[in-house]
Amino acid sequence: MSTTEPKRRGRRPNGADTKEALLTAAREVFAEQGYDAATVRAIASSAGVDPAMVNHWFGGKEGLFTAAVQIPINPAEIVREVLEGPREQIGERIIRRFVTVWDGVGGGQFAALIRSVAGNEQAVTMLREFVQNVLFNRLVKVLGVDHPEMRVALCGSQLIGLGMARYVVRIDPLASADADAVAATIGPNLQHYLTGDLQLLA
Amino acid sequence: MSTTEPKRRGRRPNGADTKEALLTAAREVFAEQGYDAATVRAIASSAGVDPAMVNHWFGGKEGLFTAAVQIPINPAEIVREVLEGPREQIGERIIRRFVTVWDGVGGGQFAALIRSVAGNEQAVTMLREFVQNVLFNRLVKVLGVDHPEMRVALCGSQLIGLGMARYVVRIDPLASADADAVAATIGPNLQHYLTGDLQLLA
Repeated sequence: MSTTEPKRRGRRPNGADTKEALLTAAREVFAEQGYDAATVRAIASSAGVDPAMVNHWFGGKEGLFTAAVQIPINPAEIVREVLEGPREQIGERIIRRFVTVWDGVGGGQFAALIRSVAGNEQAVTMLREFVQNVLFNRLVKVLGVDHPEMRVALCGSQLIGLGMARYVVRIDPLASADADAVAATIGPNLQHYLTGDLQLLA
Repeated sequence: MSTTEPKRRGRRPNGADTKEALLTAAREVFAEQGYDAATVRAIASSAGVDPAMVNHWFGGKEGLFTAAVQIPINPAEIVREVLEGPREQIGERIIRRFVTVWDGVGGGQFAALIRSVAGNEQAVTMLREFVQNVLFNRLVKVLGVDHPEMRVALCGSQLIGLGMARYVVRIDPLASADADAVAATIGPNLQHYLTGDLQLLA
C-alpha cells in the first residue's frame, strides 16, 4: 500500500510503556495548563521518565501534542469504517463515531484541545492540518464529490461546533443526548455537506 | 431644595465616554490576555479611568466581559431582522448576519471569545446563557416549532462551529468566502435545524 507502516519490530515493551506514560501525562498536563504553559520537563516528570524520551519518541513537544490529540481518533480506521454501509448514511456514521470516541475519553480531552487551540497558533495549524489533510480529504477523495475543499471545511465547522456545544459550552439537550440521538439529528446535515447540492454561488 | 446640582446630571456625557473607553479597552485586554488573566485594574488603566468605574457601570469584570462580548450582537435587533422576509430563508439570513457582524469587528473578537471560554467556566456559562436564553430561545419561540431546546442547541453548534472554522482554525475556503457564499452554503442546514424534521429518536 502507499502508506509507510510504522516500524514495530524494534519496539520493546519498555518503550511502549514509556510512550503510553508520556501520552497519559501529556493529556493531563496539556489539559490543565494549555499547550504554551505545559513543558516537556513537567510532562516527563509526571510520567516518571527522562525528558529526552519526548524527543526520542515524539520528536518534541509538538509531536507529543499531536500524538496525544490524535489518540482517540485513528483517521485511517475512521475513514474505512464510515465508508462501510449505505453511502447516504455516511454523515450519520461519522457523527456517531465522533461522539462515541470523544465521550469515551470523557469529553475533557476535546475541551483540552480547544484550550490549546485558543492560545496557540501552532496548535491551530495542527488541528487544521488534522481536519483537512488527515481526516476529511481522504474521505471526499473516496466519495469523488465536487467542491472537495469546501465540503471539508463545512464538515470541519459542524464537527468542531458539535464538540464545542457538547463538551465545552455544554448546551443541552445536545450535551446529554446519547450518540444515536445526536447522529440521527446532525447526521443528515453532515451528509448534505458531504454529498448534497452545496448551492455554491457562481 | 438643594442648590447643588444633582450628581447624575453632571456625570452623564462623561459617563458615556467612560463606558465606551472601558469597553474598547476590555476588548483589547481580554483578547490579549484571556478572561482569567485580564484584570479590572489593567483594563481601567488602559482606558485611562478609575477602576471603580468598572463596578459602577458594569457591576464588575464579568459584567464588563458580557458587555464587551455582546457588543457586535444586539439580540433583539437580530431576531427582528432575521424574522423579516421568507420564513424558509431564516437560516440563510442568520448566517449572513453572523458572518457580517463578526467580519465587521475583524474576526479577532470571536477568537478572543473562544480564548476566554476555553479557560474559564464563568465565560462558558455566559456564552451558553447568551446562545440559549438571549438569542435563540426568542427566535424558536416566535417560530413556534417543536423541540425548541434541541433546535437551539443544534443552531448553537453550527454557529459556534462556523465561527471556529472561519476565525479560529481558519479552514479555507470557508475562512475566506464572502458572507453571501457562506450564507448560501450553510443557511439551508441552519434552516433544517430551525424548522425541519429533526428525526429525533423516540
